[in-house]
Amino acid sequence: MKLTEDELRRFDEDGYLFFPGRFTPEEVGVLKQAAAEVYALQREEVWRESSGVARTAFAAHTYNEAFRRLGAHPRLIEPVMQLVDGPVYMHQYKVNAKAAFDGEVWQWHQDYGTWRRDDDMPEPRAMNIAVFIDEVTAANGPLLFIPGSHKFGVLEAGHDLETTSYPLWTLDRDTVKKLAERGGCVAPTGPAGGMLLFSSLLVHASPPNISPMDRTIVYLSLCHVDNHIRRFKRKEWIAHRDFTPIEPLADDCLMDLADDQAALGRRYRPPPLPVATPLRSPWCLG
Amino acid sequence: MKLTEDELRRFDEDGYLFFPGRFTPEEVGVLKQAAAEVYALQREEVWRESSGVARTAFAAHTYNEAFRRLGAHPRLIEPVMQLVDGPVYMHQYKVNAKAAFDGEVWQWHQDYGTWRRDDDMPEPRAMNIAVFIDEVTAANGPLLFIPGSHKFGVLEAGHDLETTSYPLWTLDRDTVKKLAERGGCVAPTGPAGGMLLFSSLLVHASPPNISPMDRTIVYLSLCHVDNHIRRFKRKEWIAHRDFTPIEPLADDCLMDLADDQAALGRRYRPPPLPVATPLRSPWCLG
Repeated sequence: MKLTEDELRRFDEDGYLFFPGRFTPEEVGVLKQAAAEVYALQREEVWRESSGVARTAFAAHTYNEAFRRLGAHPRLIEPVMQLVDGPVYMHQYKVNAKAAFDGEVWQWHQDYGTWRRDDDMPEPRAMNIAVFIDEVTAANGPLLFIPGSHKFGVLEAGHDLETTSYPLWTLDRDTVKKLAERGGCVAPTGPAGGMLLFSSLLVHASPPNISPMDRTIVYLSLCHVDNHIRRFKRKEWIAHRDFTPIEPLADDCLMDLADDQAALGRRYRPPPLPVATPLRSPWCLG
Repeated sequence: MKLTEDELRRFDEDGYLFFPGRFTPEEVGVLKQAAAEVYALQREEVWRESSGVARTAFAAHTYNEAFRRLGAHPRLIEPVMQLVDGPVYMHQYKVNAKAAFDGEVWQWHQDYGTWRRDDDMPEPRAMNIAVFIDEVTAANGPLLFIPGSHKFGVLEAGHDLETTSYPLWTLDRDTVKKLAERGGCVAPTGPAGGMLLFSSLLVHASPPNISPMDRTIVYLSLCHVDNHIRRFKRKEWIAHRDFTPIEPLADDCLMDLADDQAALGRRYRPPPLPVATPLRSPWCLG
C-alpha cells in the first residue's frame, strides 16, 4: 500500500492522487448496500437535501459494520499515514449521496479552512481520502479540483450559511479564478471503486447533480493524532473527538464481511432498500 | 463533408455524432473574438443570466460577420443536408455562453418539443449542430445526452417559465430516468473546435457552470425548407421566418475573414472586449 516516489512527487505538485479501480466490484457492492442502509435511517447524522433525499450520512463508521471496516481499510489508512508521517485518527466520516436530480452544489472551499476556523485543528496535517461507490461522470456532479491550489495555505473565506443545508467556509470568485489560471481545473471521473486522495488545503467544489444517475462517494478525513482538534464547537459526529490511532485491518476485511453475511444466511436480513434499485449507467463517457 | 455509413448508423442508434477537432485553433480564435463582440452589444437578442452576464446571443448570424459565415459553413450545413435529405434553412441560431460561475442550468428537454408546440414545425426533420468555442470539460457545464432518446417521438413535457430566464418545455424525472436506464447518460467533452450534431428529438440538458472557466458553444438549428414553421408566436430572431435555403460557403470562409481583418489593418478595429481575457484551461481532464 506504499505510495511510490512518483506518486509522492505528484501529490506534492498537484495536491491529489487518483487511483481508478482501487476497490473491486464485489467490495463496491458491499458498500453500496451499506449506503442504502444508512440513508434509510432516521438519525440526526443523516442530513437531507431541501427535497428530502439523503445528502450526507455523517459518522457512518460508528453505526454500520461495512463503513466501520472501510474506516480502517489499509488501502485508505496506510497511504495517509505515510503522507502525514505517523498514526492517524478519524476526524470526519461522510457518505455523500449527491442523488440523481436532487444532489446540490458544494461551493469552492478548502476543508482545512473549516477545520482550522471551526475546530481549531493546529496544522493542515490531515487529509481526505474518498472511495467512489457509484460511477462518477461528467454528468453526475463530479468533484472539481484546482491542481496546485494546496500550496497557498489557508485562503480567505466567507461563512456561507445559505446556499445549501451545510454551512461552509467558501472562497470568493477572484481567488478561485486566479488559482485556476495557474493550475487549471480538473474533474477526476471513473467507475465505482476509484479512490481519490487529496490535501485538506486543496481548493475543490462539486456542481449539482441534474442527471438521472446517483453519485455516492465516501469521504474519510484523517488527521495525525498529535494534530487533533482543540475546539469542540461542532457536533461530535461531525468533528470527532476520539483521537485513538486507527489500526489498519486486513486487506480483505470487506470481502470477509460479504462472506460472513452470506454464511449467516437466513439469520441475516439487511433492511429493505428504501428506494428503487439505483440506476445502472451502462456507458457514461467522461 | 459526407457522413460515412458508419456515422449514419451511429446517428440512427444514438441520436448524435461528436467530431472532436473539427475546427482549427485559428478558426476558433475568429469565433471567440466574435462571441466577445456580440456579448458586448446591448440588443434584445442578447439575453442575460439573473446575474447580468450574457447567457445567449440569438440570431448572431444576422449582425456579426464571423457568425454569418459559420451559419453557412459547409462543415455544418452539408452533414445536416445529408441527414434531412435536402436543403435547409436556419430555424434558430444561438451563441450560448454558460459563463464561469454564473452559467445556469438547462433542464432536460427535446428541442423539437418546443418547435412543435410553440412554432408549429410539422415534423422533426430538423436538427442541431454545435461548435465548441471553449474547451468543454466535466467541470464547466457540459451538454448531457441520453443516447437513443430520440427514438420515442415527442415526449410529454411541462412549460417551465421559472427556473431560468428562458422558457422551456421540460420533461419529468420519471421519463428521464426510464430513458437513461435504457440508454445511459453521456457528456461529450473535448477541446474548443469540436463539433456536435444531434437530433432535435434527443433528450438533453446541461448543468450550471460553477467552474472558473467559460464555456461558449454556438448552436445552429437547421430545418428542411419544406418543414418550415407555420406559427409565428415567438420573436422572429428566436424562431426565424426566413426559409431561404442556405448555400454552403467555401471551407476556408472563416480563415478568409481572419485574413481580411488582418489585411484591413488599421482600418478594422474590433470593439474592445467587455471583460478580461477569458481564462485559459491548460489541462482539464474529462
